[in-house]
Amino acid sequence: MAFSPLMTREHTWCVIMAGGVGSRFWPMSRSAYPKQFLDFLGLGRTLLQQTYDRFLPICPKENILVVTNAQYAHLVREQLPELKEEQILPEPFRRNTAPCVAYADHVIASRDPEACIIVTPSDHLVLKEEAFQRTIELALQHATNDDRLVTLGITPNRPDTGYGYIQFMDDAVPHPRVKKVKTFTEKPDLETARTFLESGDFLWNAGIFIWSLKSINKAFHQHLPAMQARFAKGEGLYGTIKERTFVEEAYADCENISVDYGIMEKAPNVYTIVSDFGWSDLGTWGSLYTHIPKDAEGNATVGENVRLYDCSGNMVHMHDERLLVMQGMKDMILVSTKDALLVCRKQDEQKIRQFVNDLTAETGDRYI
Amino acid sequence: MAFSPLMTREHTWCVIMAGGVGSRFWPMSRSAYPKQFLDFLGLGRTLLQQTYDRFLPICPKENILVVTNAQYAHLVREQLPELKEEQILPEPFRRNTAPCVAYADHVIASRDPEACIIVTPSDHLVLKEEAFQRTIELALQHATNDDRLVTLGITPNRPDTGYGYIQFMDDAVPHPRVKKVKTFTEKPDLETARTFLESGDFLWNAGIFIWSLKSINKAFHQHLPAMQARFAKGEGLYGTIKERTFVEEAYADCENISVDYGIMEKAPNVYTIVSDFGWSDLGTWGSLYTHIPKDAEGNATVGENVRLYDCSGNMVHMHDERLLVMQGMKDMILVSTKDALLVCRKQDEQKIRQFVNDLTAETGDRYI
Repeated sequence: MAFSPLMTREHTWCVIMAGGVGSRFWPMSRSAYPKQFLDFLGLGRTLLQQTYDRFLPICPKENILVVTNAQYAHLVREQLPELKEEQILPEPFRRNTAPCVAYADHVIASRDPEACIIVTPSDHLVLKEEAFQRTIELALQHATNDDRLVTLGITPNRPDTGYGYIQFMDDAVPHPRVKKVKTFTEKPDLETARTFLESGDFLWNAGIFIWSLKSINKAFHQHLPAMQARFAKGEGLYGTIKERTFVEEAYADCENISVDYGIMEKAPNVYTIVSDFGWSDLGTWGSLYTHIPKDAEGNATVGENVRLYDCSGNMVHMHDERLLVMQGMKDMILVSTKDALLVCRKQDEQKIRQFVNDLTAETGDRYI
Repeated sequence: MAFSPLMTREHTWCVIMAGGVGSRFWPMSRSAYPKQFLDFLGLGRTLLQQTYDRFLPICPKENILVVTNAQYAHLVREQLPELKEEQILPEPFRRNTAPCVAYADHVIASRDPEACIIVTPSDHLVLKEEAFQRTIELALQHATNDDRLVTLGITPNRPDTGYGYIQFMDDAVPHPRVKKVKTFTEKPDLETARTFLESGDFLWNAGIFIWSLKSINKAFHQHLPAMQARFAKGEGLYGTIKERTFVEEAYADCENISVDYGIMEKAPNVYTIVSDFGWSDLGTWGSLYTHIPKDAEGNATVGENVRLYDCSGNMVHMHDERLLVMQGMKDMILVSTKDALLVCRKQDEQKIRQFVNDLTAETGDRYI
């Protein structure tokens, strides 16, 4: 298989995955209105919109696709009215990221067989946009010059137990930032995370992938052949009126599996770019807390009408326009939305998922 | 002056004072919608409605008058649609309780010169309705048989610093529950309150008065003669189209003074009935807390949609129908209304008044 020496911008595609539910951010994030559709940081653009904006300098805007659950397609249309209908790929069911990538790949194949593709989550934070662009350019070079599956690895600054880690080999590639991947690891416990940090050869897995269409197709052939074959059956249907029905049937047949587990952990040609672009997956209120400006007492506040007395270390998020007067609170999370209010110790935020489960068990999806 | 031996029910009148603002209960109680108009205990009837209900067995329903600030007259009409228009006495300004009593007395005088009157706040709690009725009957006997101004005194069960106290003389009256009043005292400090409790001759001043029209008129003549004369000028106007204008002018001329200070502390013929009818003035969130059923962890909750985890000793009041999920909170007050949310340490509830003042200074009456 031959690879073109350097992809031009017109062959660069971006697949934004926007199907997540985000239950850890309840009640801000709701199953009917998940995290990526919210302006989490109070910046005037939702996380999805920020993700879209981030890729505008990188590829033609008509090469940006958003894959999302069918129930969120209207939110994507609302928030990104500049997208044409063929840029929104609705998924009929939740089947994790491998089917999502396979579907998008086949749509792109029907439009541009020479494509190089960036796959990105829709709900992460990137503070250093320029560093991000340069990193993507570097990744595109390596993904297009060779048959490489590239993932971005963030240099860790703390033993975070909320992230997956990538272990790299130090001298496989003659480039200071491009490393061959040795292993992917799941979220570690604190002690393991500390060991990772000290060893110096572990990076946070940002879940951003860069590969040529040819490379990812080849990898699917090798590691998820049934899924690849199922979507290949639709050749000639993508972009036609028959696409939706075909995709519904294909998804029904698909394994529920992530691209990390199905492809990246198995493929021999996986590389990572050592990156530092002010990244957070905004996976928890705690990680959001670290990215919001704080007052002298360490209170991070989003909301116009918030009055704090004798408060410190709190994370306050007033999603509605109600007034909050708060006194005597320390290291708490308080989140207020139109129909729900959450108050929780910051250190116990992992319990939020349990609260949501309890709620679902008792009230169904009314508040979920 | 002659007093009739025993008042009949048809001459019994009740004056409900419903003009208060209730800023200590912000944000539940708003200046546009104060405490007496709220269903504070989640019982399905507001405090005003409960007060009205409480007097139905005591006097004819057309003898129940509600004196309120003009801005709240519509709330009284809404909540007590059974009242005729002449049973609602709107006050043009806030002038404390003495003008309120004088106004009501003159209205009653125009309808029933033989009246015996019970004056009551509209926003207190009475748990033992039958004990209350029997106490009122006893008070009516003593107020109608002799020229006595009677006030109800509650046997204290704790050294409360939020109440005024009545000191009584032990053997002036040959009745175990009827005592001549020695002094009224303002809210004491804790040490003084403890002394009061130990001494056994102090009662809480419930602010409920019972007197004949003749006795209270006589007392006004003696102790607030200008006010009495001012309202007496309206003779012939009460109950006519000219009443409102007359009352506006009379109030403008009136001193701002309480009936306690203006009459009760000065009159020589003041008696108290030693009472126990499960009373609270519901003056603070703390006093409300003591009257709401609590779970095993001491959380007092009003609201349908409240889910607590690892919480104890909290006072939660969801006035709207929003869901609350709360974790890790101890001894806090949380009050949620349609447009405001208060979180405050229970022990610091006296600061709420300051929060309201700050808010007024910065946002005017938007949230007040």
